[in-house]
Amino acid sequence: MDTITIKDIAKICGVGVATVSRALNNHPDINPETRQKVLDVVEEYGFVPNNSARNLKKTDSRTIAILVKGMTNPFFMKMIGIMEEEIQVKRYSLELRHVDENTDEVEVALELVKEKKLRGIIFLGGLITHSTEKLEKIGIPFVLSTIPVSDGSEGSYSSVSVDDVAESRKIVDFLIKKGHKKIAFMGAPKSDISIGKLRYDGYIRALEDNKIKPDQKLIWHSEEDADTYSMQNGYDVMNSMLKKKMKFTALFAISDTMAIGALKALREAGIRVPEDVAVVGYDGIDMGTFCAPTLTTICQPFEEMARKTCSILFDVIRHDLAHQKIIMEAKIVERESTGNQEVSIG
Amino acid sequence: MDTITIKDIAKICGVGVATVSRALNNHPDINPETRQKVLDVVEEYGFVPNNSARNLKKTDSRTIAILVKGMTNPFFMKMIGIMEEEIQVKRYSLELRHVDENTDEVEVALELVKEKKLRGIIFLGGLITHSTEKLEKIGIPFVLSTIPVSDGSEGSYSSVSVDDVAESRKIVDFLIKKGHKKIAFMGAPKSDISIGKLRYDGYIRALEDNKIKPDQKLIWHSEEDADTYSMQNGYDVMNSMLKKKMKFTALFAISDTMAIGALKALREAGIRVPEDVAVVGYDGIDMGTFCAPTLTTICQPFEEMARKTCSILFDVIRHDLAHQKIIMEAKIVERESTGNQEVSIG
Repeated sequence: MDTITIKDIAKICGVGVATVSRALNNHPDINPETRQKVLDVVEEYGFVPNNSARNLKKTDSRTIAILVKGMTNPFFMKMIGIMEEEIQVKRYSLELRHVDENTDEVEVALELVKEKKLRGIIFLGGLITHSTEKLEKIGIPFVLSTIPVSDGSEGSYSSVSVDDVAESRKIVDFLIKKGHKKIAFMGAPKSDISIGKLRYDGYIRALEDNKIKPDQKLIWHSEEDADTYSMQNGYDVMNSMLKKKMKFTALFAISDTMAIGALKALREAGIRVPEDVAVVGYDGIDMGTFCAPTLTTICQPFEEMARKTCSILFDVIRHDLAHQKIIMEAKIVERESTGNQEVSIG
Repeated sequence: MDTITIKDIAKICGVGVATVSRALNNHPDINPETRQKVLDVVEEYGFVPNNSARNLKKTDSRTIAILVKGMTNPFFMKMIGIMEEEIQVKRYSLELRHVDENTDEVEVALELVKEKKLRGIIFLGGLITHSTEKLEKIGIPFVLSTIPVSDGSEGSYSSVSVDDVAESRKIVDFLIKKGHKKIAFMGAPKSDISIGKLRYDGYIRALEDNKIKPDQKLIWHSEEDADTYSMQNGYDVMNSMLKKKMKFTALFAISDTMAIGALKALREAGIRVPEDVAVVGYDGIDMGTFCAPTLTTICQPFEEMARKTCSILFDVIRHDLAHQKIIMEAKIVERESTGNQEVSIG
């Protein structure tokens, strides 16, 4: 036998390669007993992880990492394209990592910082719920992009986002001004205390502003294990709502992808949009102009957000400028799903 | 003045930073005079590019690069997600680069290989038209993914793809078997000699097999500067076709994204799908099940293709196995746009 591989270790332990990888990375998502078993075998066989970057001398690389939470949201894909461009123009390289919904992106960042000599990190999505203390451990400049920050951590990192509560309140208020009172809400899993929670808060606030009592029967959350911001999930949640014979004249889905999934379920059920139910989403993805009917939404300035994220990060890295917390404004784009020709309202 | 930056060089030359970057990278997409001017100033001021990885000692990094041509195709996004997973499991790192439609991806690869110690490269999209001689210059293992290869370059690199001619012939033959004779074709720009050309060849072959004379008036190409595989382009091309009052009973668009754009233009023109016109795409993206009507297509086995691409690359890198040329089979998925309930045909 020449050198032992991670596959061999997995076979000996009777686990998958991914599990061995988790054990070696001290990943939280592994049973402690399994981790110990793997580490014992690793020691016994004298296995050295292949990716021994951590053992090598670190070079002074000029690398920016982007950690993306939630692969399926096309909103992020556009932003990544723009960021990539900005990073290339500055002659830095880009290390792109997708983090799945159940993985802690700060842990991934800490690991990356250990392995590679990064110059900066952009977190795209996720992250709102981490403590400042934990974030400060990262130790290199980073920007939270599309992630609202409201804590008192002045100065230790930057953020670029819209005000999710205010924007979601704005779009729900728009529905109310059109005469809707029974407005269904399609949100993230109940346990979500991030973007999903903020958009829910905006919904509630718009109702209260207009003296409409929130109706629990109209509030629908995604299943805990759902791929929240996907078309399939919007489709599934709407089908559950329809099965319960919910009565509503409008729907606010917390992402365009979910709204587009909901449109399909409504169509299949013979419910006309906008005649029977008006539908609005959130984000402003291209597909909202190609679905049928086209989708009214609150459109985030994603291009501007992506550029600002990069310019702040480079200002901090290259010119030692102070960190900034930037809040940008989204705007309502009216389309067919609320019975309109396309119009933008500021 | 401390060190001179690329911004300073740009200012002195009266050009943009991207242009300086192109000149430094010996990028083909720059006026030769401008390049010379930039290089003169660079020399005069003794400017050293910041990203001096090429001047530093190379480390024995375990990095796989993915060069993606055509950012907007959601088909690739799914594949990248899977490849990323496969690369992480093997404990390699991933360097992801998007190459725009007018940039030569082999040039980008040659530059990357010079700068970084890559272990392998995956080309996703593009590339069909490069000479074997040029490809061999790359000098490290690489796999062409979704790029069909038919030349005699046995052994020097691998490829994983479907047979674009055969599959496009299959879907057009499917339309003919349903009784269609006037089948419009929506393709890449005329100058395309890659995927777009192959899918066109398949269309022509299906017609000829069935003794239908190809009608030039039904064959529509994208504008030369279009973002070919985008929904917007499909929308634009269909609008041009409708302006010319083309008569056809079916449409074959060479990508699902284009077909979805076409559906919007048809809907706006009051043309019913599938009653007046049947529409088929090519690829099998998720969105084809969420548009209205849902889209009949020829579905590439993208997940399997992504995994096979990685497994071949790692076999070559780690076990010194021979390169392979793999052709996979796509299958027709019937949906509403051809008047069907969802069915798969092998």
